[in-house]
Amino acid sequence: MGQPGLVAVDWGTTSLRGALLDGTGRVLEEKSAPLGILNVPDSDFAGVFSAQFAEWRTSGRLCLMSGMIGSRQGWREAPYAPCPAGLADVAQRLRWIEPGRVAIVPGLSIEQDGVPDVMRGEEVQIFGALRLTGLSDGQFVLPGTHSKWVTVRGGKVVGFRTFMTGEVYGLLTQHSILARTTEAGAPLDEGKFLEGVGRARHGSGLLHEAFGARALALFERLPPPQSASYLSGLLIGDELRAQALGGDVVLIGAPALTMRYALALRHAGVATRTLGTEATWAGLMALHAAMGGPT
Amino acid sequence: MGQPGLVAVDWGTTSLRGALLDGTGRVLEEKSAPLGILNVPDSDFAGVFSAQFAEWRTSGRLCLMSGMIGSRQGWREAPYAPCPAGLADVAQRLRWIEPGRVAIVPGLSIEQDGVPDVMRGEEVQIFGALRLTGLSDGQFVLPGTHSKWVTVRGGKVVGFRTFMTGEVYGLLTQHSILARTTEAGAPLDEGKFLEGVGRARHGSGLLHEAFGARALALFERLPPPQSASYLSGLLIGDELRAQALGGDVVLIGAPALTMRYALALRHAGVATRTLGTEATWAGLMALHAAMGGPT
Repeated sequence: MGQPGLVAVDWGTTSLRGALLDGTGRVLEEKSAPLGILNVPDSDFAGVFSAQFAEWRTSGRLCLMSGMIGSRQGWREAPYAPCPAGLADVAQRLRWIEPGRVAIVPGLSIEQDGVPDVMRGEEVQIFGALRLTGLSDGQFVLPGTHSKWVTVRGGKVVGFRTFMTGEVYGLLTQHSILARTTEAGAPLDEGKFLEGVGRARHGSGLLHEAFGARALALFERLPPPQSASYLSGLLIGDELRAQALGGDVVLIGAPALTMRYALALRHAGVATRTLGTEATWAGLMALHAAMGGPT
Repeated sequence: MGQPGLVAVDWGTTSLRGALLDGTGRVLEEKSAPLGILNVPDSDFAGVFSAQFAEWRTSGRLCLMSGMIGSRQGWREAPYAPCPAGLADVAQRLRWIEPGRVAIVPGLSIEQDGVPDVMRGEEVQIFGALRLTGLSDGQFVLPGTHSKWVTVRGGKVVGFRTFMTGEVYGLLTQHSILARTTEAGAPLDEGKFLEGVGRARHGSGLLHEAFGARALALFERLPPPQSASYLSGLLIGDELRAQALGGDVVLIGAPALTMRYALALRHAGVATRTLGTEATWAGLMALHAAMGGPT
């Protein structure tokens, strides 16, 4: 496996991030570039990879990459590992670019009631969260453009659902009739946000409740900055409505988003803990360990 | 009231339609122009009105106008009539442009569980549907960009809810990640449409089910033309999920849309009957009658 440590790469749709980790998983160096898979000139992934990470790969140190780099639009397609899937399952399905040296981590797929679901990159964050928290069971939420709610049992992902929450928020606040009366970038108004979360429980559905934001604005009862918080609450509340909430929830992601889920879940009586981007590096390190490298 | 008959005008956001009706409500002549309130040069509503309808207004025949022409962006704002509201309530709140000659019909508003809802133009179609069907109670659905589900008791609108179904369909099929794998204008695939309608009942919510269309496409299980029908089914199914369905439903609108609701409702065991644009003229005629004109 070359010298100890790992070159850990998170190569997504819009950005490329990397970390040089020592044998214990400690971050020695980090870098990032706006070179997501859709922004790589001529799809020259090998060229970008070499330019960014050659200096870290002395003596052939192992490199593991996760994210959309393994999709059909990426460097090499890494077919999804079917759930239930743990670290060992993923390790067996690595897509090697240079045998024993550079590999892409596959995403996960699942079939539930006749419809599939998929993730790419989040699986590594979850394995990282397990390593960082010491948990082997639990419910994990990864907010974002496409939020993921994930159930883990015995260290394996046994179920997950994707929600188009972030994307629909963007569409409604920028391209719908609500754009006229919503200030999408306004700071969070916690009261209005929780009002939206609560409203989502009424049972009339998102398509109706979103129009309520329009009607409230017509009667000057919802100023544009508060409209953004109310809509955000409606959408996240709609996600919550679909969950069987049990024990604590682990949130993984950027603080601006995880903070909203923490508020909404606390409002529903659910305790949360939050992890950030460190989960990705921890997950790739855990995978390295599962492959026989240092733990 | 001038000579018998009525100049009936439906002035919406994107189009202007008019009909010359005789004293019995029969349509003598119709016209339409792409002169919706957002397309009227210099907001010269009086000029467009005169150019389009002067020839019909001989001897000062009454003219009633419904739709967005009565909104804040229209000719003159006609404040909403609060529900419950019947013909007499609306007749009392006409916004006169020329006293006794030209009036704008107000829309309706309602407050339900602390959030308002509004309609403008649909109220006239409902009163028209009552006149055409002889009903004074029932459930009415007006599909569209913003679909309305309306409950009528004793000839009055006692409750209604708006759903952003058509608008969200447009956003998802044209601007979301689903646009890549959806052929928005494809002809309806009834099987896939009903599969979407059924899927909406699973309880995971629209934000999740819409992503299912993406995952199905990734595994080449949902070709782009069928994806459009499936998504349409998911959205209309989500509307249905929010309804307390009882007796028959009267659908009012364009055939391409009402047909989808008829399919979905029949699938749920609910019988439907359908009315088209004739409901608008019948509604304005019914209002004319309520004002003391001929029935």
